[in-house]
Amino acid sequence: MITSSSNPKVKQVVQWREKAKERNSAGIFLVEGFKMYEEAPAGEICQVYVSEQVLEKAAAHPGVYRKLQETGYEVVSGEAFRKMSDTQAPQGLLCVVKQPRYSLESMLGTACPLLVILENLQDPGNLGTILRTGEGAGVTGVILAGQTVDIFNPKVIRSTMGSIYRVPFVYVENIADTMVKLHAARIRTYAAHLEGEREYDSFTFREGTAFLIGNEGQGLSRELAALADTYLKIPMEGQVESLNAAVAASLLLYEAHRNRKG
Amino acid sequence: MITSSSNPKVKQVVQWREKAKERNSAGIFLVEGFKMYEEAPAGEICQVYVSEQVLEKAAAHPGVYRKLQETGYEVVSGEAFRKMSDTQAPQGLLCVVKQPRYSLESMLGTACPLLVILENLQDPGNLGTILRTGEGAGVTGVILAGQTVDIFNPKVIRSTMGSIYRVPFVYVENIADTMVKLHAARIRTYAAHLEGEREYDSFTFREGTAFLIGNEGQGLSRELAALADTYLKIPMEGQVESLNAAVAASLLLYEAHRNRKG
Repeated sequence: MITSSSNPKVKQVVQWREKAKERNSAGIFLVEGFKMYEEAPAGEICQVYVSEQVLEKAAAHPGVYRKLQETGYEVVSGEAFRKMSDTQAPQGLLCVVKQPRYSLESMLGTACPLLVILENLQDPGNLGTILRTGEGAGVTGVILAGQTVDIFNPKVIRSTMGSIYRVPFVYVENIADTMVKLHAARIRTYAAHLEGEREYDSFTFREGTAFLIGNEGQGLSRELAALADTYLKIPMEGQVESLNAAVAASLLLYEAHRNRKG
Repeated sequence: MITSSSNPKVKQVVQWREKAKERNSAGIFLVEGFKMYEEAPAGEICQVYVSEQVLEKAAAHPGVYRKLQETGYEVVSGEAFRKMSDTQAPQGLLCVVKQPRYSLESMLGTACPLLVILENLQDPGNLGTILRTGEGAGVTGVILAGQTVDIFNPKVIRSTMGSIYRVPFVYVENIADTMVKLHAARIRTYAAHLEGEREYDSFTFREGTAFLIGNEGQGLSRELAALADTYLKIPMEGQVESLNAAVAASLLLYEAHRNRKG
């Protein structure tokens, strides 16, 4: 059992939790809690830590209990676990999972893609929520551009509620190049924009579709907005000037979902 | 100029920022930043604090500058201001605003109400986002039930992006009583529920409508779900079991908005 907070494994987990660079050079990310552990692909799990107090509770969850036998685990004292954990009320189960890798090419090669392009998205909760809603709406990929927050940030992971395992995503260095590739793949790009004349529900989005979503405070950069094929608008009553980025993405994605199923 | 962090006014603001009880007994809430200050109804502003550094910048914003002459303000040193502020990068303008009061009766008396009922909603960002999207979708009121987070929490205020000034809301002690009153006012109540047979976009929501949204982890309590007139479902692909509370509310509210404008 790991009892000391200065155990090298504990220190390593803290490094991975706090530093994107450390996570990326190891090619891993951290997940916490029973649900996130149960949904993790067993073959991708590298390490599992269970707090002493939680090991007993795990026995009451047959899925978790069986999986622990399969993946193996190390027991950690309550104090050392609190050091490892990102949350104030740790669920007592933390695991280290291999980062999935996807390519832009395979994303563009699927039949009738439904993509979201996020530029400079800063809020971890928004990114996680977009992955979660995206999976629900049948998104085929998420493209991360500019200074978008690290997708393996523990707060992002938590708010994906498991979608991190299933929604393909890719970081792109040069979004202008990517827009050219989308165009060549006959994927139409849509930006919610003040100059949009048609409302979002007047489109069908049945062909290859990508929605552009910008930074929470600044919106899309002028450069990227200029590269979009089509501007659309989301109607807003009252004095509302814009919607939360995850809400705007959700409305657009579910509008595409509605039309594609019909 | 206020220069000391132990100035009684600074201490008072910190109390108001941290304690719902203090805010409520004084009948005020705090807002930060130029945008929130500009949108605040001038007659409801009780106190204004501007950091020394920001006072110059304010001169470049004619709207802010004029309003400062109108409402008056006190200058605060950078250090004392950081103590008052809720944010890590304070915008240097903080004001104390009177809490608005609304009644359930007036909410039920409007023509064709579009309401959201929030039960035990815990995340401040979700509550603020629901007010913001609610205003955009033309909501006529928000009903807060159970252990829902305090609407005057600074994190809620910030994420409303100004909708706090414009969307009527009311806390109810006894939600079962409130449901009876909604029924008597011929307002139909809808809950997103696993047992819902019809999808949310098969309803028109053109009559008086209230959407029930539950806690982030637990969903609606069984007791409240049992009082809903109608269950509906939001379709979800993949392995998604539920959507973020603010996302679910946004999809429902914008569906009502779409049908009502048509």
